[in-house]
Amino acid sequence: MVTMNVRVAGVGMTPFGKHEDRMGRDLFADAATEAIADAGVDHEAVDEVFFGNFMGEFAEVQGHSGPLAAESAGVPAPSTRIESACASSGAAVRQGVNRLRVGDADVVLVGGAERMTNLSTAEATEALAAAADAAWEIRPGITFPGAYSLMANAYFDQYGGTREDLAHVAVKNHANAVENDLAQFQKAIDVDDVLGAPTVSSPFGLYDCSPISDGASAAVLVSESYAEEHGLETPVAITGTGQGTDSLALMARESMTRTPAAEQAAEAAYADAGIEPGDVDFAEVHDCFTVAEVLALEALGFYETGEAISAAREGETTADGDLPVNLSGGLKAKGHPVGATGGAQISEMTKLMRGDHVNSDAVSDATVGVTHNAGGTVASAVVHVLEVVE
Amino acid sequence: MVTMNVRVAGVGMTPFGKHEDRMGRDLFADAATEAIADAGVDHEAVDEVFFGNFMGEFAEVQGHSGPLAAESAGVPAPSTRIESACASSGAAVRQGVNRLRVGDADVVLVGGAERMTNLSTAEATEALAAAADAAWEIRPGITFPGAYSLMANAYFDQYGGTREDLAHVAVKNHANAVENDLAQFQKAIDVDDVLGAPTVSSPFGLYDCSPISDGASAAVLVSESYAEEHGLETPVAITGTGQGTDSLALMARESMTRTPAAEQAAEAAYADAGIEPGDVDFAEVHDCFTVAEVLALEALGFYETGEAISAAREGETTADGDLPVNLSGGLKAKGHPVGATGGAQISEMTKLMRGDHVNSDAVSDATVGVTHNAGGTVASAVVHVLEVVE
Repeated sequence: MVTMNVRVAGVGMTPFGKHEDRMGRDLFADAATEAIADAGVDHEAVDEVFFGNFMGEFAEVQGHSGPLAAESAGVPAPSTRIESACASSGAAVRQGVNRLRVGDADVVLVGGAERMTNLSTAEATEALAAAADAAWEIRPGITFPGAYSLMANAYFDQYGGTREDLAHVAVKNHANAVENDLAQFQKAIDVDDVLGAPTVSSPFGLYDCSPISDGASAAVLVSESYAEEHGLETPVAITGTGQGTDSLALMARESMTRTPAAEQAAEAAYADAGIEPGDVDFAEVHDCFTVAEVLALEALGFYETGEAISAAREGETTADGDLPVNLSGGLKAKGHPVGATGGAQISEMTKLMRGDHVNSDAVSDATVGVTHNAGGTVASAVVHVLEVVE
Repeated sequence: MVTMNVRVAGVGMTPFGKHEDRMGRDLFADAATEAIADAGVDHEAVDEVFFGNFMGEFAEVQGHSGPLAAESAGVPAPSTRIESACASSGAAVRQGVNRLRVGDADVVLVGGAERMTNLSTAEATEALAAAADAAWEIRPGITFPGAYSLMANAYFDQYGGTREDLAHVAVKNHANAVENDLAQFQKAIDVDDVLGAPTVSSPFGLYDCSPISDGASAAVLVSESYAEEHGLETPVAITGTGQGTDSLALMARESMTRTPAAEQAAEAAYADAGIEPGDVDFAEVHDCFTVAEVLALEALGFYETGEAISAAREGETTADGDLPVNLSGGLKAKGHPVGATGGAQISEMTKLMRGDHVNSDAVSDATVGVTHNAGGTVASAVVHVLEVVE
């Protein structure tokens, strides 16, 4: 029904990791400046801004960050903060896509930023918990490593699989990040490293968990007609967007081993783009914990329920596998400044598709990629389909 | 360019005021249930939800409230939290309007909720301050009564006007709320009451300030074609939407007595609807402080800069004036649960236009109304044009 392609005109991203003494606004200024320069558009050409941020209230006593994002980017346009926990900037990208599809705007700036490392690990864990249900999860004391552990253990119980299977996810994603200068951890690890790491929440050791990070991401999206009129090189299009929502509390769901919000988001995005899971060449998925990548691959329709656990171990999702997953390093190794993650998936995938990413060779023949960004225990999920169109 | 009218199929709103022991989710459930019943649509018909909330992190340690809003409303649809400080639900309405305009969705649920009275006044003031610039305003200790006081004093200095002029704004808005059961203060006051009230931040006394409130609002918006196909009665359309953004910090602006974000929002909304300020019959504006109503009337183009100060005193904006403003009671008397306010403007204006509001008689011939919702010191502004179309 919606036929107009939304083109990715430019992308930008700060290195993810620790940025001492830099506020979220400073980080977003860097990412947005890079994206705008990459796009080759004027700051004044931007019609609207959608900015993802999750824990600004806790990290900087800062809400109302939409105007701040526009101001930092030097963009005099209406700007709105979108908050969907760790899916905040995926949701911001979606608002940008839909804004262009209305037909009366041609250029949008989307992305997100998060500052986290100025908090102690305990403070950051507490802030992250605000993505869970305050009444039914936060008060009883659950944290996200705990919630995802429950999901992992339930998965093992229902479908089999071991800690070692999960370890291969971390090993793969670290391997992908070794030469990615933007990644927080550019260090190869092996299965023994993962299995021997200190336990965070059984079955997860330290290497099963994505890190606490600072960072920002941005993308300039334009209408096809604007790209043509202005002679912009836009070889990548966002052809599908989908979002799904589930109960916020894990306990309210029928299953702990499926993520219906992501299934809905994928179904909607595929229908929007007119593709099927089998058409997808590679993916960037939300591996906040190793098991999350497994659940994502099933929700996206790449594997039947209960069958993705061995994907990394079997090499099916490695850089030279049939379906490379998280060539950027994923949240695990690239880092996870939560409000920036969804936008970073778009930035990294665009570079992978344009041939200017260190891992582009792994997907030189690819034409269809999918991003999967999740919030909480996948109470929110946003999926986008990107295609090479030129 | 965008021709499809978005129809308001149903609206709902809790009473504003103190709701002890009720969480934001409970309040939104009430407002959404009312709006969905008023619309006469199935819960399953809703394609997407946009939920405004500002201070959930501070009041309930709750972020990620998009999924929670959908769950509370019993709506199995993708749901996103929109945060633009006190303009959060105005911005949520805008996302809903644009979502319908894409053309592949027919029903959206929009609105917002805020819980504030469980905080102490000091805590609530501190939480509200997160709508200001953390680096340049919060750390130096400014609060919103202080910021708006600066604006009021600058206005007096540049254009003249007195505390008594402002008092008439409060008196008018209280008068409008006397019979509105949903209003927090159903009590008439006079100018002496306002001038004799304890000082909050000079020139503001207690009655110049909107209160701390709990509450929620909701609206079901549908496409024109959906309304026709399903035989819905939808006499009110949203024909224009506009948003503007300014620097977050007041100190970064050229003028303290103008609100360019609101000017931009109004200009965009009027162009979108194909109307001019002179076509507007009545308005609901963001009177978080008495001076804010004055600035709003100028930004909306109803008065030249520096000339709206006497509007209430002269009776021009009273219920029987030429341009009734805040017939609902406004933020001042209706109450101001910040994340619910923009949606409440839509709810109240729709009822006023449909003839089922206690003050509908004042606008029985009206066909065009405007809502003006602002965040911070108008760093964000969202304007909507509503028209009677049947």
